[in-house]
Amino acid sequence: MKVKVVVNGYGTIGKRVADAITKQDDMELIGVTKTRPSYQAKMAVDKGYPLYVSGKGVKDDFIKAGIKVDGRLEDILESADIVVDTTPEKIGKENKDIYLKYSDLKAIWQGGEKASIADASFNALVNYEAAFGKKFVRVVSCNTTALCRTLYAIHKNFDISHITAVIVRRASDPAETEKGPINSLEPSLKVPSHHGPDVQSVMGNIDIETMAIKAPTTLMHLHSVIVTCKKKGVTVSDIISAFESTERIRLFNGWEHIFGTAQIMEFAKDNAFYRGDMMENGVWSDGINIIGSKIYYYQAVHQESIVIPENIDAIRSMFELEKDKYKSMRITDESLGILKNIK
Amino acid sequence: MKVKVVVNGYGTIGKRVADAITKQDDMELIGVTKTRPSYQAKMAVDKGYPLYVSGKGVKDDFIKAGIKVDGRLEDILESADIVVDTTPEKIGKENKDIYLKYSDLKAIWQGGEKASIADASFNALVNYEAAFGKKFVRVVSCNTTALCRTLYAIHKNFDISHITAVIVRRASDPAETEKGPINSLEPSLKVPSHHGPDVQSVMGNIDIETMAIKAPTTLMHLHSVIVTCKKKGVTVSDIISAFESTERIRLFNGWEHIFGTAQIMEFAKDNAFYRGDMMENGVWSDGINIIGSKIYYYQAVHQESIVIPENIDAIRSMFELEKDKYKSMRITDESLGILKNIK
Repeated sequence: MKVKVVVNGYGTIGKRVADAITKQDDMELIGVTKTRPSYQAKMAVDKGYPLYVSGKGVKDDFIKAGIKVDGRLEDILESADIVVDTTPEKIGKENKDIYLKYSDLKAIWQGGEKASIADASFNALVNYEAAFGKKFVRVVSCNTTALCRTLYAIHKNFDISHITAVIVRRASDPAETEKGPINSLEPSLKVPSHHGPDVQSVMGNIDIETMAIKAPTTLMHLHSVIVTCKKKGVTVSDIISAFESTERIRLFNGWEHIFGTAQIMEFAKDNAFYRGDMMENGVWSDGINIIGSKIYYYQAVHQESIVIPENIDAIRSMFELEKDKYKSMRITDESLGILKNIK
Repeated sequence: MKVKVVVNGYGTIGKRVADAITKQDDMELIGVTKTRPSYQAKMAVDKGYPLYVSGKGVKDDFIKAGIKVDGRLEDILESADIVVDTTPEKIGKENKDIYLKYSDLKAIWQGGEKASIADASFNALVNYEAAFGKKFVRVVSCNTTALCRTLYAIHKNFDISHITAVIVRRASDPAETEKGPINSLEPSLKVPSHHGPDVQSVMGNIDIETMAIKAPTTLMHLHSVIVTCKKKGVTVSDIISAFESTERIRLFNGWEHIFGTAQIMEFAKDNAFYRGDMMENGVWSDGINIIGSKIYYYQAVHQESIVIPENIDAIRSMFELEKDKYKSMRITDESLGILKNIK
């Protein structure tokens, strides 16, 4: 029996989650939603995804645009085992009241919502087990997901005592042309930025401080990370080994001539990753430095796609389809064409 | 008797230094140089600055363009007391051999050159005295200058034990259209970035670690700074007081609605600062946070102008025109219209 999934909000994350669901043997996509007709709504129908109208959307608007709809969100939730909420920040919270009307319906929210919306905040590598059998789970944001992956790789091997991370955020996604800035740098004045507490919502009481700056770019986020470990004598090659043997981390070597986020996106396109997505953390091998007891590294984060495999693993954990996180990640990664060879 | 100054390289920094020299009672601008005719070369002549041809420049090219030149660099160095070298990175080093031919000629280089080029690396606030009577001085780079100012304010009052700074660098100056990136974030893979050792070249053996990321913006740099002090119980208002009472730091309050570097540049234009320059550090009051023993703040740095007052003070120190750094800075700041009320 396959888990029946509705993706509520067929946007940047939603369309990717929907595609990913269709590639899983243990899941079935029974519907996606849109509030307004658009080329994306049309694309969903063209792909054969049953389309439902959500929120304040009007069915007639879709019909006028020549887009076939199968009903409203509420019409399909009855048949669903789980809804993956990929609506914009804060809307997900409002939707919770709708989901609660269906007593057996589980739900996943994204990192734009507060941790308190769900029973657990989730990262496949760090706390896959925390979602076992849970009804409501939050997959943490792109930046938090990326931090969790590399920090877990270090923590597991070398026992982290302190983390400093400065997050340079991309101002908007490539198609979000209504957002800025286009030529300014904007600090997040509140310290820690939400990323620190968010990492703690997954990794527990780890000592992390974060600051964040918004930059006028659309492609990826970029993190500067400084880590102190309890284990002494850690070398650069120890860190490289730890990253190499950890899921969803792609190391870039000097000879690859990957100078920044633009080259990583070009790499993803050259490798024919669908939509040019990069679901792994991009880490520069030559950017891993050790001075005294501190480890320094930079990582790039593709905000549009990095959480997609995490959503899939979250479903697998919530329905206890697979008890072993490594097996779930392997199934997910193989289905999504994530290239890394997991040892 | 006024100090006779030649500005070698009438570009982004050079044209500003030249203008600043003309505003000092104790200095005289006796010449500026260009290698090629351009609107800037024409502007120098229109301002009444004697123009000389430098480097591989050809005098006839200027004459053909209708720009009056008074000779070559070497023709004016004989009469100069000091040359301020504002040529592009690395060219300054080559020029040293020229300057050495004039036995009494002093020289200032900018932060693009290595510390070893000069007898001292200079920041007016931190080590004005280090340039007393010196022949060769290097004014540190824009980012290092900005770090020195706020770090000195904190260090003087609260005794710094450790600094972490992540520098988000503007990719190019507004008119440097040949440079990129325009949509990418690029890490400086070598840690520490040059800024840490550069701060030490001025502040001595202070414990500082720096990382740097290049962002696609032209206006200003932006720093995330984390400082630990030996003095306990420091409050946000202590830091605000320290910054308020320190030269060349402009605090921006929440009600001013300065969200990022774009608003700071707008503020500078609204205040009719010539060229829209902002020679002070821009620090967000609401971005000053204290958690445990750590101080967090953000500062914006106008790369084109922040070092201008430092060049003026360096000249005053090298010729011992003024023994007191605070008096020199006050003279400079009043002449340049730096608005801050120094207490």
